[in-house]
Amino acid sequence: MSDLSPRPLAPFPAVPRFQAFFQSFDDPAAGESGAARLALLREALKARGVQGYVIPRADAHQNEYVPPCEERLAYLTGFTGSAGLCIVLEHAAALFVDGRYTLQAPAQVDQSAFEIVPLAQTAPEAWIEGHLPRGATLAFDPWRTTLDARRKLSDAVAAAGGILVALEDDPLADQWLDRPASPAAPIRLQDPSLAGEDASAKIARVQTELKREKLDLLLVSDPHAAAWLFNIRGSDVAHTPIPLVWALVPESGRPALFAAAGQVTHAVEAALAPLCDLLPRSRLEEVLASRGAGCCVRLDQATAPVHLASVVERAGGTVSKGADPISLLKAVKNPAEIAGMRAAHLLDAVALARFLQWFDRVAPGGLSEIDMVEALETFRREAGPLTDVSFPTISGAGPNGAIVHYRVTRSTNRLLGEDELFLLDSGAQYPQGTTDITRTLVIGTPTPDMRRHYTLVLKGHLAVSRAVFPEGTSGAQIDPFARQFLWAEGLDFDHGTGHGVGAGLSVHEGPARISKLGHVPLKAGMILSNEPGFYLTGAYGIRIENLVLVEPRAPGGDRPSLGFANLTLVPYERRLIETALLTDDEMVQIDTYHREVMTAVGPHLDAEARDWLLAATVPLA
Amino acid sequence: MSDLSPRPLAPFPAVPRFQAFFQSFDDPAAGESGAARLALLREALKARGVQGYVIPRADAHQNEYVPPCEERLAYLTGFTGSAGLCIVLEHAAALFVDGRYTLQAPAQVDQSAFEIVPLAQTAPEAWIEGHLPRGATLAFDPWRTTLDARRKLSDAVAAAGGILVALEDDPLADQWLDRPASPAAPIRLQDPSLAGEDASAKIARVQTELKREKLDLLLVSDPHAAAWLFNIRGSDVAHTPIPLVWALVPESGRPALFAAAGQVTHAVEAALAPLCDLLPRSRLEEVLASRGAGCCVRLDQATAPVHLASVVERAGGTVSKGADPISLLKAVKNPAEIAGMRAAHLLDAVALARFLQWFDRVAPGGLSEIDMVEALETFRREAGPLTDVSFPTISGAGPNGAIVHYRVTRSTNRLLGEDELFLLDSGAQYPQGTTDITRTLVIGTPTPDMRRHYTLVLKGHLAVSRAVFPEGTSGAQIDPFARQFLWAEGLDFDHGTGHGVGAGLSVHEGPARISKLGHVPLKAGMILSNEPGFYLTGAYGIRIENLVLVEPRAPGGDRPSLGFANLTLVPYERRLIETALLTDDEMVQIDTYHREVMTAVGPHLDAEARDWLLAATVPLA
Repeated sequence: MSDLSPRPLAPFPAVPRFQAFFQSFDDPAAGESGAARLALLREALKARGVQGYVIPRADAHQNEYVPPCEERLAYLTGFTGSAGLCIVLEHAAALFVDGRYTLQAPAQVDQSAFEIVPLAQTAPEAWIEGHLPRGATLAFDPWRTTLDARRKLSDAVAAAGGILVALEDDPLADQWLDRPASPAAPIRLQDPSLAGEDASAKIARVQTELKREKLDLLLVSDPHAAAWLFNIRGSDVAHTPIPLVWALVPESGRPALFAAAGQVTHAVEAALAPLCDLLPRSRLEEVLASRGAGCCVRLDQATAPVHLASVVERAGGTVSKGADPISLLKAVKNPAEIAGMRAAHLLDAVALARFLQWFDRVAPGGLSEIDMVEALETFRREAGPLTDVSFPTISGAGPNGAIVHYRVTRSTNRLLGEDELFLLDSGAQYPQGTTDITRTLVIGTPTPDMRRHYTLVLKGHLAVSRAVFPEGTSGAQIDPFARQFLWAEGLDFDHGTGHGVGAGLSVHEGPARISKLGHVPLKAGMILSNEPGFYLTGAYGIRIENLVLVEPRAPGGDRPSLGFANLTLVPYERRLIETALLTDDEMVQIDTYHREVMTAVGPHLDAEARDWLLAATVPLA
Repeated sequence: MSDLSPRPLAPFPAVPRFQAFFQSFDDPAAGESGAARLALLREALKARGVQGYVIPRADAHQNEYVPPCEERLAYLTGFTGSAGLCIVLEHAAALFVDGRYTLQAPAQVDQSAFEIVPLAQTAPEAWIEGHLPRGATLAFDPWRTTLDARRKLSDAVAAAGGILVALEDDPLADQWLDRPASPAAPIRLQDPSLAGEDASAKIARVQTELKREKLDLLLVSDPHAAAWLFNIRGSDVAHTPIPLVWALVPESGRPALFAAAGQVTHAVEAALAPLCDLLPRSRLEEVLASRGAGCCVRLDQATAPVHLASVVERAGGTVSKGADPISLLKAVKNPAEIAGMRAAHLLDAVALARFLQWFDRVAPGGLSEIDMVEALETFRREAGPLTDVSFPTISGAGPNGAIVHYRVTRSTNRLLGEDELFLLDSGAQYPQGTTDITRTLVIGTPTPDMRRHYTLVLKGHLAVSRAVFPEGTSGAQIDPFARQFLWAEGLDFDHGTGHGVGAGLSVHEGPARISKLGHVPLKAGMILSNEPGFYLTGAYGIRIENLVLVEPRAPGGDRPSLGFANLTLVPYERRLIETALLTDDEMVQIDTYHREVMTAVGPHLDAEARDWLLAATVPLA
């Protein structure tokens, strides 16, 4: 029998034991205030003598998760997506969102105040060229804008015949009276057995890279890079255990680490003092100016703010814009990090197996998307020392599954329905490591199209998973394998196939990714997601995601080769697999994976969950 | 029976009727003069007060085939490859060659005078940084250097602490006494039924593009673009029917076409005069300066010389560096061009079938690589009005097949041997269109490895051929399909999978290509090659190449989709196909293609060749 029996839609009593601590289901409150806040902002801009202002979603570190005090875009527009940009002019205001948010943004934003512009149709630069009046002054925030972003703005403003200026103060500060304080949570030391390499050794490797690139000094503007380098962790932002620190690394000698007052405990100070100068965050500009004078200073093009480039240049230093060399070093995990990630995935697999067994049993009469988030988080807390979820769980029932980065709130919350698909994309932060997994489930009986679409996505996922490729191959060269079966039927998905994942850091980590823009060669030790999907607006979404480890392969031949090993250990949804669409090799691949899952996870389950896993991993063939 | 019987190695009488008119087998003569010529060049540089000089392979149009008077790199170094760059300093001289030429260059160049540097190991810029003495002056040729190339040189010279200057005259002129004259062959009008669109309509389309991009003037520096635009052809260089002309296209009003004295006959003048101003080539700079003054002038980043950018800037114009919009317009073939290309491929298929039938019969006792070139060209001349070969035929027996861009000469000429592979990559220029085809053949009995490698290459070729993909997909996203089966066995090939092909123009045409660098979206009407390969140095080379037309596909689904149609109509080498490695679908794909070949080509063959084709296209299944 190749399928489990259909999952029934059955009533189930309330489940008070389930709770979500790491995710809010609050609806965004700002939508209706957008017009008033926009009016106040325009007054503040007028007082500053500028006609326009750019509000990126970013903080000064270009973090994906920003502290509440930096949620300026959400404060102004109501839009809570993880990427976006607003441009406010005297007579127009545009919110630019990418394909993930073209459904969410209109639901959150007052469109009488803000025009919502899909980035795929109009780039902000083109919009500026079309809307900025000749001679008008457009301002930007030099802390929250990178050099690349400034150059694009500069070109666009020049083309429009306008003037671009940096506005040092925040014009939203006047009106945002209940703005939260900047975070300054205590820094903690990472367990050396999980780090796998002393900070001193990492500093030496970075200094070797700086010498190789003929750089005198590196500004570490990405807190993930600083966290990796000094083997420290923090909790200044949600979902990613980082402290919001800055660092300077000279090509030889002692680095400097800049933290907020009170972030450094005595124990941390004792551990870090032999390695680096510990300085208050407020001294960053002064020390950068004195150390950077006459030097060639690398500023990371992805995260460094324009403001700090100006500090270097005013001090007589030269800005070398390029990749922070830590980015690539951090992406290649060492054996301890890999062991930690495997351990985290085993914990997560236990939680997922228990969740899925419960899901099959309750399945899931009268329960909602939020119930699912709460249950899953609870199973994760019971499986291991959960420190956070690695991002807000995407729990999308029926048509909500078609919203690629859907975040369930009280008002969007949907009951799981009979004969519908349910998409669940979630991840955990354990001390051992970070996980990210998507499974798509069915309640009741799937339609033939649901099974066909699921199987096409699965075939792409399997093709990536089994790919063997020579060293030097980039993620861009792997990405088409995930799409080929959808393409053959005139279908596709509008996101990359995979992103890099940090080891106990950010669930989205550069520089490698599996997407048409992923031109960084993959290296053994990198960890990426493999998550093709398919989305039918108004009907359902399908995504299947495992994390994979890049490993050496020895297929014969003359090319040193690489391949992927699955870290995720959770069965696919066999009720949705149309075996007639699979080749024999694909069936063997699924069965082999399922056998690995059973072998690894089975012994850690109670009898009920183990029985469920056994049924869920019975060979298809 | 899935194979033809083994091809015997049998003696065969000499074949005086075979001749090659369009290709020379002469050995490069210069190798031994390299040191003396280098010494004279160094004297000439010293007299000009510079310490170094860059000699690209290019002419002022960045043509692939340059006229003999522009073969400066070959004159100096002896190296006759189609790409390369020499940098001469006082105490060092380096010849940079790409992966195609790492075997050929050492055989041609005096390595006591020139260091041969593989580009994959060391970029010219890195070499300059390592070798140019601080304070030294490096000169470049502003006619034969593009803006991009100049910027790279400029960065490298700055990093080395040197000075970069443009040298207006040619320091090789002093010593190169028998240098041929510049070509000035008569221009001819293209047959309107082949062009498919009046020049006036093409000019209007280009002017629409210029308006869209807010450009005042376009410098057409690529003669292929001018030939397409004005529906003219010429014979100033080998293998590509172009006249070496320049043109200027204003966003409205009359273009100007610049040709050498005597190139424009009365008939051509009568046809072109209503469309454009016909001016002598010597007036280009003057007219560019007067028309470009105060204007925004597009210079094609791939082909425009630094010198003409300076002319624009000195005249007070603004240089807009970007793609010549003609490049993309030209790449999308209209129905008449497609019909012409199909007609050319039918002629070529007749020639190839007759050649292959002859090859099987003589097969090919005592015959050499040159005999094969001569025979193939003769069959092509007999099949249609052959105007040229589209590039020098690559005729590589045994280990010579592993040299990717091998050119056979009298001294490298090899007899075809028993139990060896023979790689034949060739193309034709007919008035109707341009062809490019590679077949790999076996004499005697192939080894299991030969069959396995051939079949892996064929599987990649078939995967590209049957790919269906959404509009917007680039060649970079198709390229991995060609490699996946080789990758799985730890193998690969070090060239792109395919290049664009012109309709009765260059066999290598931008901007689209199937390679990891091919980021231009494919469009219906584009024609590209599909030519994966495998090369075992010292043993054999395998390449299988068809030209394919990008066509709309309707696979269902919601994405407007594209696919490829084969233009090439020549059977694969069934003696090398290991059917055990093919899926049923691949066998059906081969059989379907072979049936198309038989149906299209069979009726145009004599009985003997038709019988051969019938046997060569018998279903595998």
